[in-house]
Amino acid sequence: MNYCSHCGQPLISRIPEGDNRHRFVCDHCDRIHYQNPRIVAGTIPVWEGRILMCRRAIQPRHGYWTLPAGFMENGETTVEAARRETLEEALAGVRIEGLYTIMHVTHIDQVHMFFRASLLDGEFGAGEESLEVRLFAPDDLPWDEMAFPTVQESLSHFIEDSKKEAFPVRVTDIQRRLGQ
Amino acid sequence: MNYCSHCGQPLISRIPEGDNRHRFVCDHCDRIHYQNPRIVAGTIPVWEGRILMCRRAIQPRHGYWTLPAGFMENGETTVEAARRETLEEALAGVRIEGLYTIMHVTHIDQVHMFFRASLLDGEFGAGEESLEVRLFAPDDLPWDEMAFPTVQESLSHFIEDSKKEAFPVRVTDIQRRLGQ
Ligand SMILES: [Zn+2]
Ligand SMILES: [Zn+2]
Repeated sequence: MNYCSHCGQPLISRIPEGDNRHRFVCDHCDRIHYQNPRIVAGTIPVWEGRILMCRRAIQPRHGYWTLPAGFMENGETTVEAARRETLEEALAGVRIEGLYTIMHVTHIDQVHMFFRASLLDGEFGAGEESLEVRLFAPDDLPWDEMAFPTVQESLSHFIEDSKKEAFPVRVTDIQRRLGQ
Repeated sequence: MNYCSHCGQPLISRIPEGDNRHRFVCDHCDRIHYQNPRIVAGTIPVWEGRILMCRRAIQPRHGYWTLPAGFMENGETTVEAARRETLEEALAGVRIEGLYTIMHVTHIDQVHMFFRASLLDGEFGAGEESLEVRLFAPDDLPWDEMAFPTVQESLSHFIEDSKKEAFPVRVTDIQRRLGQ
Protein backbone atom coordinates (compact mmCIF):
# COMPACT_ATOMS: atom_id res chain seq x y z
CA MET A 1 0.00 0.00 0.00
CA ASN A 2 1.72 3.16 -1.27
CA TYR A 3 -0.95 5.76 -2.05
CA CYS A 4 -4.16 6.97 -0.39
CA SER A 5 -7.11 5.36 -2.16
CA HIS A 6 -9.21 8.42 -1.31
CA CYS A 7 -7.02 11.38 -2.35
CA GLY A 8 -4.11 9.76 -4.22
CA GLN A 9 -1.32 11.25 -2.04
CA PRO A 10 1.56 9.07 -0.72
CA LEU A 11 0.88 7.13 2.50
CA ILE A 12 3.07 6.99 5.60
CA SER A 13 3.30 3.97 7.90
CA ARG A 14 3.09 5.02 11.55
CA ILE A 15 1.19 4.41 14.79
CA PRO A 16 -1.80 6.78 14.89
CA GLU A 17 -2.66 8.60 18.12
CA GLY A 18 -4.62 6.33 20.48
CA ASP A 19 -3.60 3.22 18.53
CA ASN A 20 -0.81 0.71 19.19
CA ARG A 21 -0.11 -0.64 15.69
CA HIS A 22 1.49 0.71 12.57
CA ARG A 23 -1.11 1.77 10.01
CA PHE A 24 -1.01 3.33 6.58
CA VAL A 25 -1.95 6.94 7.25
CA CYS A 26 -2.67 9.81 4.83
CA ASP A 27 -1.52 13.17 6.17
CA HIS A 28 -3.24 14.95 3.30
CA CYS A 29 -6.85 13.85 3.95
CA ASP A 30 -6.26 12.38 7.45
CA ARG A 31 -7.61 8.94 6.59
CA ILE A 32 -6.25 5.75 8.17
CA HIS A 33 -6.22 2.73 5.86
CA TYR A 34 -6.77 -0.38 7.98
CA GLN A 35 -6.01 -3.88 6.71
CA ASN A 36 -8.06 -6.79 8.04
CA PRO A 37 -8.33 -10.56 7.53
CA ARG A 38 -10.58 -11.90 4.81
CA ILE A 39 -13.11 -14.71 5.05
CA VAL A 40 -13.06 -17.71 2.69
CA ALA A 41 -16.38 -19.60 2.76
CA GLY A 42 -17.07 -23.03 1.32
CA THR A 43 -19.02 -26.26 1.62
CA ILE A 44 -18.60 -29.97 2.13
CA PRO A 45 -21.29 -31.05 -0.37
CA VAL A 46 -22.67 -34.56 0.16
CA TRP A 47 -24.78 -36.71 -2.17
CA GLU A 48 -25.79 -40.26 -1.26
CA GLY A 49 -22.92 -40.61 1.21
CA ARG A 50 -20.27 -39.30 -1.16
CA ILE A 51 -18.43 -35.96 -1.10
CA LEU A 52 -18.19 -33.55 -4.03
CA MET A 53 -14.71 -32.17 -4.78
CA CYS A 54 -13.27 -29.95 -7.50
CA ARG A 55 -9.90 -30.24 -9.24
CA ARG A 56 -8.50 -26.74 -9.56
CA ALA A 57 -8.11 -25.16 -13.01
CA ILE A 58 -6.37 -22.10 -11.54
CA GLN A 59 -3.33 -21.19 -9.46
CA PRO A 60 -2.42 -21.65 -6.70
CA ARG A 61 -2.47 -25.46 -6.51
CA HIS A 62 -3.54 -26.02 -10.11
CA GLY A 63 -4.57 -29.67 -10.63
CA TYR A 64 -5.11 -30.40 -6.92
CA TRP A 65 -8.41 -31.31 -5.32
CA THR A 66 -10.39 -28.82 -3.25
CA LEU A 67 -13.79 -28.23 -1.73
CA PRO A 68 -15.81 -25.46 -3.38
CA ALA A 69 -14.84 -22.24 -1.55
CA GLY A 70 -13.82 -18.66 -2.15
CA PHE A 71 -13.66 -15.13 -0.79
CA MET A 72 -16.82 -13.82 0.83
CA GLU A 73 -18.12 -10.70 -0.97
CA ASN A 74 -19.52 -7.49 0.47
CA GLY A 75 -23.29 -7.63 0.83
CA GLU A 76 -23.59 -11.36 1.40
CA THR A 77 -23.59 -13.69 4.41
CA THR A 78 -21.10 -16.52 4.95
CA VAL A 79 -23.92 -18.95 4.14
CA GLU A 80 -24.68 -17.16 0.87
CA ALA A 81 -20.97 -17.02 -0.01
CA ALA A 82 -20.55 -20.76 0.57
CA ARG A 83 -23.63 -21.53 -1.53
CA ARG A 84 -22.54 -19.19 -4.34
CA GLU A 85 -19.03 -20.66 -4.51
CA THR A 86 -20.47 -24.17 -4.73
CA LEU A 87 -22.67 -23.10 -7.61
CA GLU A 88 -19.81 -21.32 -9.41
CA GLU A 89 -17.10 -23.96 -9.01
CA ALA A 90 -19.12 -27.19 -8.99
CA LEU A 91 -22.32 -26.05 -10.77
CA ALA A 92 -24.16 -27.63 -7.84
CA GLY A 93 -27.12 -26.31 -5.88
CA VAL A 94 -26.86 -27.14 -2.18
CA ARG A 95 -28.86 -26.94 1.00
CA ILE A 96 -26.65 -25.68 3.86
CA GLU A 97 -26.91 -28.03 6.86
CA GLY A 98 -24.80 -26.10 9.33
CA LEU A 99 -21.53 -24.34 10.07
CA TYR A 100 -18.78 -26.89 10.63
CA THR A 101 -15.16 -25.59 10.65
CA ILE A 102 -13.65 -22.18 11.32
CA MET A 103 -9.92 -22.23 10.69
CA HIS A 104 -7.47 -19.37 11.23
CA VAL A 105 -4.77 -19.14 8.60
CA THR A 106 -2.90 -16.26 10.21
CA HIS A 107 0.18 -16.28 7.97
CA ILE A 108 -2.02 -15.22 5.05
CA ASP A 109 -4.59 -13.24 7.11
CA GLN A 110 -7.53 -15.46 6.22
CA VAL A 111 -10.34 -17.15 8.13
CA HIS A 112 -11.74 -20.23 6.37
CA MET A 113 -15.28 -21.34 7.16
CA PHE A 114 -16.78 -24.56 5.83
CA PHE A 115 -20.43 -25.57 6.01
CA ARG A 116 -21.90 -29.04 5.82
CA ALA A 117 -24.20 -29.19 2.78
CA SER A 118 -26.38 -31.55 0.74
CA LEU A 119 -26.72 -31.51 -3.04
CA LEU A 120 -30.26 -30.53 -3.95
CA ASP A 121 -30.67 -32.96 -6.84
CA GLY A 122 -27.37 -34.72 -7.54
CA GLU A 123 -26.58 -32.40 -10.46
CA PHE A 124 -23.06 -30.98 -10.76
CA GLY A 125 -20.32 -30.15 -13.26
CA ALA A 126 -17.04 -28.31 -13.73
CA GLY A 127 -17.29 -24.53 -13.33
CA GLU A 128 -14.76 -22.19 -14.96
CA GLU A 129 -12.26 -22.58 -12.13
CA SER A 130 -12.46 -26.40 -12.08
CA LEU A 131 -10.83 -28.99 -14.37
CA GLU A 132 -13.22 -31.68 -13.18
CA VAL A 133 -15.71 -32.23 -10.38
CA ARG A 134 -16.32 -35.65 -8.86
CA LEU A 135 -18.07 -37.45 -6.03
CA PHE A 136 -15.70 -39.39 -3.76
CA ALA A 137 -16.63 -42.15 -1.35
CA PRO A 138 -15.27 -41.40 2.15
CA ASP A 139 -12.76 -44.27 1.81
CA ASP A 140 -11.59 -43.01 -1.55
CA LEU A 141 -10.79 -39.32 -0.92
CA PRO A 142 -7.65 -37.99 -2.70
CA TRP A 143 -5.69 -37.28 0.51
CA ASP A 144 -2.35 -37.02 -1.32
CA GLU A 145 -3.62 -34.49 -3.82
CA MET A 146 -5.49 -32.00 -1.68
CA ALA A 147 -5.07 -28.33 -2.54
CA PHE A 148 -5.07 -26.72 0.91
CA PRO A 149 -4.56 -27.66 4.58
CA THR A 150 -8.00 -26.29 5.52
CA VAL A 151 -9.67 -28.59 2.98
CA GLN A 152 -7.75 -31.58 4.33
CA GLU A 153 -8.54 -30.66 7.94
CA SER A 154 -12.25 -30.08 7.31
CA LEU A 155 -12.55 -33.41 5.53
CA SER A 156 -10.61 -35.42 8.08
CA HIS A 157 -12.82 -34.07 10.89
CA PHE A 158 -15.88 -34.70 8.74
CA ILE A 159 -15.00 -38.34 8.10
CA GLU A 160 -14.39 -38.97 11.80
CA ASP A 161 -17.53 -37.11 12.92
CA SER A 162 -19.65 -38.92 10.31
CA LYS A 163 -18.99 -42.18 12.14
CA LYS A 164 -20.63 -40.72 15.28
CA GLU A 165 -23.20 -38.74 13.29
CA ALA A 166 -22.39 -35.69 15.44
CA PHE A 167 -20.82 -32.57 13.94
CA PRO A 168 -19.72 -30.05 16.57
CA VAL A 169 -18.46 -26.71 15.25
CA ARG A 170 -14.66 -26.82 15.24
CA VAL A 171 -12.52 -23.71 15.69
CA THR A 172 -8.87 -24.40 14.91
CA ASP A 173 -5.59 -22.76 13.86
CA ILE A 174 -3.72 -23.78 10.72
CA GLN A 175 0.05 -23.49 10.98
CA ARG A 176 2.27 -22.50 8.10
CA ARG A 177 3.75 -25.64 6.54
CA LEU A 178 7.31 -26.04 5.35
CA GLY A 179 7.65 -24.71 1.81
CA GLN A 180 4.53 -22.53 2.03
CA MET B 1 -12.14 4.32 -3.44
CA ASN B 2 -10.77 6.76 -6.04
CA TYR B 3 -7.06 6.04 -6.55
CA CYS B 4 -4.93 2.90 -6.90
CA SER B 5 -3.22 2.25 -3.54
CA HIS B 6 -0.31 0.66 -5.41
CA CYS B 7 0.53 3.19 -8.14
CA GLY B 8 -1.59 6.25 -7.28
CA GLN B 9 -3.42 6.48 -10.64
CA PRO B 10 -7.23 6.96 -10.83
CA LEU B 11 -9.36 3.81 -10.52
CA ILE B 12 -12.19 2.74 -12.79
CA SER B 13 -15.22 0.72 -11.64
CA ARG B 14 -15.98 -2.11 -14.06
CA ILE B 15 -16.50 -5.87 -14.28
CA PRO B 16 -13.10 -7.52 -14.88
CA GLU B 17 -12.79 -10.35 -17.40
CA GLY B 18 -13.93 -13.65 -15.90
CA ASP B 19 -15.70 -11.87 -13.03
CA ASN B 20 -19.37 -10.96 -12.59
CA ARG B 21 -19.18 -7.98 -10.23
CA HIS B 22 -18.05 -4.39 -10.50
CA ARG B 23 -14.58 -3.91 -9.01
CA PHE B 24 -12.22 -0.99 -8.67
CA VAL B 25 -9.65 -1.65 -11.38
CA CYS B 26 -6.36 0.13 -12.15
CA ASP B 27 -5.62 0.20 -15.87
CA HIS B 28 -2.15 1.59 -15.17
CA CYS B 29 -0.73 -1.29 -13.08
CA ASP B 30 -3.52 -3.84 -13.83
CA ARG B 31 -4.41 -4.42 -10.18
CA ILE B 32 -7.95 -5.20 -9.03
CA HIS B 33 -8.86 -3.75 -5.63
CA TYR B 34 -11.33 -6.10 -3.98
CA GLN B 35 -13.44 -5.07 -1.00
CA ASN B 36 -14.48 -7.73 1.51
CA PRO B 37 -16.44 -7.94 4.78
CA ARG B 38 -14.64 -7.40 8.05
CA ILE B 39 -14.83 -9.49 11.21
CA VAL B 40 -15.70 -7.99 14.59
CA ALA B 41 -14.73 -10.33 17.46
CA GLY B 42 -15.79 -10.05 21.09
CA THR B 43 -16.66 -11.86 24.29
CA ILE B 44 -19.47 -12.45 26.75
CA PRO B 45 -17.30 -12.29 29.89
CA VAL B 46 -18.80 -13.98 32.96
CA TRP B 47 -17.77 -13.75 36.62
CA GLU B 48 -19.71 -15.50 39.38
CA GLY B 49 -22.86 -15.66 37.27
CA ARG B 50 -22.76 -12.02 36.21
CA ILE B 51 -21.91 -10.53 32.80
CA LEU B 52 -19.30 -7.83 32.20
CA MET B 53 -20.39 -4.93 29.99
CA CYS B 54 -18.78 -1.65 28.90
CA ARG B 55 -20.41 1.76 28.50
CA ARG B 56 -19.00 3.28 25.33
CA ALA B 57 -16.79 6.38 25.54
CA ILE B 58 -16.66 6.69 21.75
CA GLN B 59 -18.96 7.08 18.76
CA PRO B 60 -21.04 5.44 17.44
CA ARG B 61 -23.46 4.83 20.32
CA HIS B 62 -21.57 6.89 22.90
CA GLY B 63 -22.94 6.22 26.40
CA TYR B 64 -24.64 2.93 25.47
CA TRP B 65 -23.73 -0.48 26.84
CA THR B 66 -21.80 -3.02 24.81
CA LEU B 67 -19.86 -6.24 25.11
CA PRO B 68 -16.11 -5.90 24.60
CA ALA B 69 -15.53 -6.33 20.85
CA GLY B 70 -13.69 -4.82 17.91
CA PHE B 71 -12.20 -5.36 14.48
CA MET B 72 -10.02 -8.43 14.08
CA GLU B 73 -6.47 -7.48 13.05
CA ASN B 74 -4.17 -9.09 10.50
CA GLY B 75 -1.93 -11.73 12.08
CA GLU B 76 -4.32 -12.80 14.83
CA THR B 77 -7.07 -15.40 15.23
CA THR B 78 -10.69 -14.60 16.10
CA VAL B 79 -10.00 -16.01 19.58
CA GLU B 80 -6.99 -13.74 20.04
CA ALA B 81 -8.94 -10.75 18.72
CA ALA B 82 -11.79 -11.38 21.17
CA ARG B 83 -9.35 -11.76 24.08
CA ARG B 84 -7.40 -8.61 23.09
CA GLU B 85 -10.52 -6.47 22.79
CA THR B 86 -11.67 -7.61 26.24
CA LEU B 87 -8.32 -6.62 27.71
CA GLU B 88 -8.31 -3.24 25.93
CA GLU B 89 -11.89 -2.18 26.61
CA ALA B 90 -12.59 -3.82 29.97
CA LEU B 91 -9.02 -4.31 31.31
CA ALA B 92 -10.07 -7.90 31.96
CA GLY B 93 -8.18 -11.12 31.29
CA VAL B 94 -10.45 -13.92 30.11
CA ARG B 95 -10.37 -17.60 29.33
CA ILE B 96 -12.29 -18.29 26.09
CA GLU B 97 -14.87 -21.05 26.62
CA GLY B 98 -16.11 -21.42 23.06
CA LEU B 99 -17.49 -19.74 19.97
CA TYR B 100 -21.10 -18.76 20.49
CA THR B 101 -22.67 -16.37 17.93
CA ILE B 102 -21.82 -15.56 14.31
CA MET B 103 -24.01 -12.76 13.03
CA HIS B 104 -24.07 -11.31 9.52
CA VAL B 105 -24.57 -7.56 9.39
CA THR B 106 -24.69 -7.31 5.62
CA HIS B 107 -25.76 -3.65 5.34
CA ILE B 108 -22.39 -2.64 6.82
CA ASP B 109 -20.38 -5.59 5.44
CA GLN B 110 -19.44 -7.02 8.83
CA VAL B 111 -19.48 -10.44 10.47
CA HIS B 112 -19.72 -10.30 14.27
CA MET B 113 -18.43 -13.25 16.29
CA PHE B 114 -18.89 -13.53 20.06
CA PHE B 115 -17.20 -16.07 22.32
CA ARG B 116 -18.31 -17.24 25.74
CA ALA B 117 -15.60 -16.33 28.25
CA SER B 118 -14.77 -16.39 31.96
CA LEU B 119 -12.90 -13.67 33.82
CA LEU B 120 -9.56 -15.05 35.02
CA ASP B 121 -9.57 -13.35 38.43
CA GLY B 122 -12.51 -10.96 38.68
CA GLU B 123 -10.33 -7.93 37.91
CA PHE B 124 -11.61 -5.35 35.41
CA GLY B 125 -11.81 -1.62 34.76
CA ALA B 126 -12.61 1.01 32.14
CA GLY B 127 -10.25 1.00 29.14
CA GLU B 128 -9.75 4.10 27.02
CA GLU B 129 -12.85 3.43 24.91
CA SER B 130 -15.11 2.82 27.93
CA LEU B 131 -16.81 5.30 30.29
CA GLU B 132 -17.44 2.57 32.85
CA VAL B 133 -17.35 -1.22 33.05
CA ARG B 134 -19.75 -3.18 35.26
CA LEU B 135 -20.95 -6.67 36.09
CA PHE B 136 -24.67 -7.17 35.51
CA ALA B 137 -26.83 -9.94 36.94
CA PRO B 138 -28.78 -11.71 34.15
CA ASP B 139 -32.05 -10.22 35.45
CA ASP B 140 -30.58 -6.74 35.52
CA LEU B 141 -29.07 -6.31 32.03
CA PRO B 142 -29.52 -2.82 30.47
CA TRP B 143 -31.76 -3.98 27.59
CA ASP B 144 -32.99 -0.46 26.80
CA GLU B 145 -29.50 0.99 26.56
CA MET B 146 -27.64 -1.55 24.43
CA ALA B 147 -25.27 -0.19 21.81
CA PHE B 148 -25.76 -2.68 18.96
CA PRO B 149 -28.27 -5.31 17.77
CA THR B 150 -25.56 -8.02 17.75
CA VAL B 151 -24.80 -7.37 21.43
CA GLN B 152 -28.49 -7.57 22.28
CA GLU B 153 -28.98 -10.74 20.25
CA SER B 154 -25.92 -12.49 21.68
CA LEU B 155 -27.02 -11.69 25.23
CA SER B 156 -30.65 -12.70 24.76
CA HIS B 157 -29.56 -16.10 23.37
CA PHE B 158 -27.03 -16.41 26.17
CA ILE B 159 -29.61 -15.78 28.92
CA GLU B 160 -31.99 -18.34 27.41
CA ASP B 161 -29.27 -20.95 26.81
CA SER B 162 -27.89 -20.46 30.32
CA LYS B 163 -31.14 -21.85 31.73
CA LYS B 164 -30.53 -25.12 29.86
CA GLU B 165 -26.76 -24.96 30.34
CA ALA B 166 -26.31 -25.76 26.63
CA PHE B 167 -24.73 -23.26 24.23
CA PRO B 168 -25.03 -24.32 20.59
CA VAL B 169 -23.19 -22.12 18.07
CA ARG B 170 -25.73 -19.76 16.53
CA VAL B 171 -25.40 -18.41 12.99
CA THR B 172 -27.87 -15.61 12.30
CA ASP B 173 -28.53 -12.57 10.12
CA ILE B 174 -29.04 -9.10 11.55
CA GLN B 175 -31.45 -6.91 9.60
CA ARG B 176 -31.06 -3.19 9.20
CA ARG B 177 -33.28 -1.42 11.71
CA LEU B 178 -35.39 1.63 11.04
CA GLY B 179 -33.27 4.74 11.42
CA GLN B 180 -29.99 2.91 11.00
ZN1 LIG C 1 -5.64 10.81 1.48
ZN1 LIG D 1 -2.36 1.00 -10.11
